[in-house]
Amino acid sequence: MVPEETSQWVAEAVGGVLRGPGDVPVRGVASLADALPDQVSFLGHPKYRSRVLPSAAGVVLVPPGFDTAPPSGRAWVVCDRPSDSFSILVQHFAPPPAVPAPGIHATAVVAASACLGAGVHLGPHVVLGAGARVGDRSVIEAGCCIGEGSRIGEDCRLYPNVTVRERCCIGNRVIIHPGAVIGADGFGYVSGPRGHAKIPQLGSVQIDDDVEIGALTAVDRARFGRTWIQRGTKIDNLVQIAHNVVVGQGCLVAGQAGLSGSCRLGNGVILAGQVGLIDHCAIGDGAIVMGQSGVTADLDAGALVFGTPALDRREFARMQMNVKRLERLQRTIRELESRLAALERRGPDPP
Amino acid sequence: MVPEETSQWVAEAVGGVLRGPGDVPVRGVASLADALPDQVSFLGHPKYRSRVLPSAAGVVLVPPGFDTAPPSGRAWVVCDRPSDSFSILVQHFAPPPAVPAPGIHATAVVAASACLGAGVHLGPHVVLGAGARVGDRSVIEAGCCIGEGSRIGEDCRLYPNVTVRERCCIGNRVIIHPGAVIGADGFGYVSGPRGHAKIPQLGSVQIDDDVEIGALTAVDRARFGRTWIQRGTKIDNLVQIAHNVVVGQGCLVAGQAGLSGSCRLGNGVILAGQVGLIDHCAIGDGAIVMGQSGVTADLDAGALVFGTPALDRREFARMQMNVKRLERLQRTIRELESRLAALERRGPDPP
Amino acid sequence: MVPEETSQWVAEAVGGVLRGPGDVPVRGVASLADALPDQVSFLGHPKYRSRVLPSAAGVVLVPPGFDTAPPSGRAWVVCDRPSDSFSILVQHFAPPPAVPAPGIHATAVVAASACLGAGVHLGPHVVLGAGARVGDRSVIEAGCCIGEGSRIGEDCRLYPNVTVRERCCIGNRVIIHPGAVIGADGFGYVSGPRGHAKIPQLGSVQIDDDVEIGALTAVDRARFGRTWIQRGTKIDNLVQIAHNVVVGQGCLVAGQAGLSGSCRLGNGVILAGQVGLIDHCAIGDGAIVMGQSGVTADLDAGALVFGTPALDRREFARMQMNVKRLERLQRTIRELESRLAALERRGPDPP
Repeated sequence: MVPEETSQWVAEAVGGVLRGPGDVPVRGVASLADALPDQVSFLGHPKYRSRVLPSAAGVVLVPPGFDTAPPSGRAWVVCDRPSDSFSILVQHFAPPPAVPAPGIHATAVVAASACLGAGVHLGPHVVLGAGARVGDRSVIEAGCCIGEGSRIGEDCRLYPNVTVRERCCIGNRVIIHPGAVIGADGFGYVSGPRGHAKIPQLGSVQIDDDVEIGALTAVDRARFGRTWIQRGTKIDNLVQIAHNVVVGQGCLVAGQAGLSGSCRLGNGVILAGQVGLIDHCAIGDGAIVMGQSGVTADLDAGALVFGTPALDRREFARMQMNVKRLERLQRTIRELESRLAALERRGPDPP
Repeated sequence: MVPEETSQWVAEAVGGVLRGPGDVPVRGVASLADALPDQVSFLGHPKYRSRVLPSAAGVVLVPPGFDTAPPSGRAWVVCDRPSDSFSILVQHFAPPPAVPAPGIHATAVVAASACLGAGVHLGPHVVLGAGARVGDRSVIEAGCCIGEGSRIGEDCRLYPNVTVRERCCIGNRVIIHPGAVIGADGFGYVSGPRGHAKIPQLGSVQIDDDVEIGALTAVDRARFGRTWIQRGTKIDNLVQIAHNVVVGQGCLVAGQAGLSGSCRLGNGVILAGQVGLIDHCAIGDGAIVMGQSGVTADLDAGALVFGTPALDRREFARMQMNVKRLERLQRTIRELESRLAALERRGPDPP
Repeated sequence: MVPEETSQWVAEAVGGVLRGPGDVPVRGVASLADALPDQVSFLGHPKYRSRVLPSAAGVVLVPPGFDTAPPSGRAWVVCDRPSDSFSILVQHFAPPPAVPAPGIHATAVVAASACLGAGVHLGPHVVLGAGARVGDRSVIEAGCCIGEGSRIGEDCRLYPNVTVRERCCIGNRVIIHPGAVIGADGFGYVSGPRGHAKIPQLGSVQIDDDVEIGALTAVDRARFGRTWIQRGTKIDNLVQIAHNVVVGQGCLVAGQAGLSGSCRLGNGVILAGQVGLIDHCAIGDGAIVMGQSGVTADLDAGALVFGTPALDRREFARMQMNVKRLERLQRTIRELESRLAALERRGPDPP
């Protein structure tokens, strides 16, 4: 079942340059640390350079700058982006599992007014509310609940136990990972002497084409209007997207980031893990927020920030450096003090 | 279906003062950016003042301080709290979906010893354990699992895929959003040479009346006794409430905050997003912890803190300012050094 | 039903030394604050010393250093670790609920090629994919979905609504709390001018014996190879474990921590709540990362770090102290300036 290939085949498959023998057998893929002699690996991060030679991998994809020659019986394949090229090999040797076959499981509960496209798969215990729509070839796995009037586009995949509440609108080729929640109420109250009165959250969620939503991520419905994730944006696990947020096209939002109410991200914004954004803040196109940063003000396009409150990365680094120098600074000041005291002791020289 | 109203009607509905014509037609609500000429919007945050004039909204709710006159064909309605008043309009133009009708879905699995009040709704694939109780008019949506002996009060709403483990006690009018988990084991071990031995978590969770629990939030059961969320407290998405925590009345806990074991919050405490509390800490009534702060010691009532470790907000701001001044300070010191060196070079004047 | 015991019995049960009468009746356990006269409590944290005397608890477990004598009618039991000993009493007075009886619920959907050990419990609406295996005596509760070809070992317990995707491998005596997601796709893309192309995530997840996974925690599948949680490690709620992470044996990972792709933890590592690790970082055996810290570089075995970016804890404390001293430092410098100015004013003394 597993394909048997050679180092020569690998070089051709990735369009790289072979260094060493072309007949090294290749039957699988693995990391440098785990690889066996008949597996191909790759150098994907400079910090692992020293692992290439000790690795048992028969073939290794290396970047152009890698000068060490392969030892006897092993081969390198030089390619511009070893990590990207490796994906081609991963797919060849470890093909993805088949997509579930079309059909509606007997235990699915589908409202009479729901509307299903051609080739749809509904897994066991799926619930489709009144007026819900699922587009052609979409796969809704076990335990998913789709609320009244929500629409799922074509070629989508919802993994098990996803909840989509009423009147949400999800585009084509959208992937939603297990346990994610789309369209829960935003967190909004009017606080008064008798407590926190709930502000009705009567808007919805719109997720455009080619978006991916991670496991256990929450995208809240808008207070009115819509919370909106635009085309091609990818969101990781355990992310919080509050009500009325707008995330532009092609953004990357890493695990456990939190976007407070009414934030607006431009296109191509990158939020690293555990980042937090204050409510109502606007992040310009292509801005990058580094891990754990807390953004408390709008960011210009192309900004690169770090820290809480987030600062320009170079400014943050300079501040850190200044703080690290404080001990030396204190010594300098003590020294100045004693030199000054010595001068003072000299006293006004007698005339 | 959609109500047709006028600017005059809006002013009366919110008890505000009309500026401009009373006959501007109003058929819906929207944000300043999205509104059409027949929609009403509002100025809810000072930073959006400049969006009022460019907005197409026919009617805008504005605060008393807003002095610009409405252009021809548009109207302002001046009211004390535009955002709060807007909620009245949202509910008028976009009524919430009907509550699910009473009844037990054929696919629900209800233990013979479970006890249901009048008018209860149990959705598809709900599971109710032995001795579980659900009060009058409560709605338990698809995929929820309620453990043995747990009680849900009256007029509650549990959205899909919520898990409540055994022996938890939930009050009246409690809302629990999709995917939340109530009553999982607390995280407790006795660590020894043979590893981490699990400490049994044999207590329960008590959630009082009018509490709201966000999507994908976890409230762990107590080691013994109870983890306790008191009346009127509102908790956002993806929050972690560890074992034996007590949260007082009327608190607000924002998204992704984490409360470690045995924390005690007074009444009216506000924790902003991504805040973390060390275990066993006590937070006084009305204290406010700003976003991403890490609280490492007890806080007095009324405290307002920021940072990790969290400090009084003004102290934090002063420290930040001092750090930003470090560059200037270093220059001053270099200058002092050269002035001092100049003085020293003068040398002890010859007698 | 509830056992009736005495203070004498308590001392024997925990192997402690009785101070005070041996006939104080004991019918239950409670915290110092909540206890009634017929309950036993414990002093588990030095900050609660002052609560022992005011407590109504008839019997209190205290550490060796606790010198106050018990008042009339109450008793202390002195033991080395009151908190650990208390667990023995908790289990005596509040026995855990019975494990669900073996059997397959009529609503479970089990693939014909799935394989079940002896004494397995499958709850309502469980879904077992083709070729999935569940070992002897394991309990899979309501709403869990186990993907194609995944294996669950013996004596495991999966609480409700857990999702395990295809080809994951879970050892023996593993506990997985409600809503957790094992084996979702890692977050990996090749970004180019046409957007973010998904890198197939074709590896799996391996969870070894005696591991515990918290509620709503996500463990992503590897890009290739495996994401691997080793023996005896305990993971809290809402934790993010990214693709290709390796967590060593006997680690403790607290709530809302996030481990980025390809991190490697040694054995016995402790990550406190809300900690974040940058991708590809290696954490040595026994290292401890304090709450909310952000680790941006490899850590040696035994390291103890705090802050973002994380520093040695003492270095962090020193830096904090230096920053707090800045105000005094500024005063000192102003003083030096005026003293220096005074000296300068003296001028070059006339010859």
